[in-house]
Amino acid sequence: MSTKTGNEATVEPTGEQGIRVERVFDAPRDRVWDAYSRLEQLVQWWGRGNRVEVERWEFRVGGHWRFVEHADGEAHGFEGRFREVSPKERIVQSFEWDGMPAHVAIDTCTLTDLGDGRTKVVTESRFHTPEERDGMLQSGMGEGIEASYRALDALLARSS
Amino acid sequence: MSTKTGNEATVEPTGEQGIRVERVFDAPRDRVWDAYSRLEQLVQWWGRGNRVEVERWEFRVGGHWRFVEHADGEAHGFEGRFREVSPKERIVQSFEWDGMPAHVAIDTCTLTDLGDGRTKVVTESRFHTPEERDGMLQSGMGEGIEASYRALDALLARSS
Repeated sequence: MSTKTGNEATVEPTGEQGIRVERVFDAPRDRVWDAYSRLEQLVQWWGRGNRVEVERWEFRVGGHWRFVEHADGEAHGFEGRFREVSPKERIVQSFEWDGMPAHVAIDTCTLTDLGDGRTKVVTESRFHTPEERDGMLQSGMGEGIEASYRALDALLARSS
Repeated sequence: MSTKTGNEATVEPTGEQGIRVERVFDAPRDRVWDAYSRLEQLVQWWGRGNRVEVERWEFRVGGHWRFVEHADGEAHGFEGRFREVSPKERIVQSFEWDGMPAHVAIDTCTLTDLGDGRTKVVTESRFHTPEERDGMLQSGMGEGIEASYRALDALLARSS
């Protein structure tokens, strides 16, 4: 069964240190929130189909998270900490990849109910420097994000 | 015995998101490096005389650190991760206080041999936003830093 929905993420720079990603999902906000906040759902799409090992998951303000994604015989660690958790509306957290330790982005993820059974998710990332922002834009992040979002489309279709 | 040396830290904003702190210590660079890099020495001055509980200390690129400072019946957690460790010259690390989780500064600490038995330490902190930088400047950080540096003066005087 195809999970193609015609939705596609837009990725654009904001200011000198930011990136804004917008994507619409064909599911109500409560369901999208669950996919972001419930660990057993999150691991089904976060790794783009790759196995995700959860080393830490404290979903509360000040709590830490750490995931290791396994792909092609390699392991990639990611981690961060929650600054804000506003149920169904917003998650603010730090984000860091083991390959570039202490290069930290702050991601603000906002869910908006579009009123027609769909949900808009906007993720704004802020980097410490313009160079870090530009490096992320040039890393092919758009494809990685879209792969995750397609996995999220599939999860939402299964649980509908 | 007084450890007053007449040295005093200068604290100044840099750009829109930075703070630069400069301080001279009456000790050779090797000794100042040891005080920053050897855990048993670091805990003697880092907490300004307060007890420092070490929860994590991995002094290498990508390694984490986490200290809990105990003062006046309260516990304050701090943590970060090392981006760069260049022996005797430079340490780059992230820095975060539990009271403001996921508000992360990147600290670059550079040691310069002044050639006369003294060492200049410059710490440049970079914040994600001008507001975070200004908040740190207004928090009375100068006094806290100077208290730590006086404890470091005392350690260096003891080990001379």
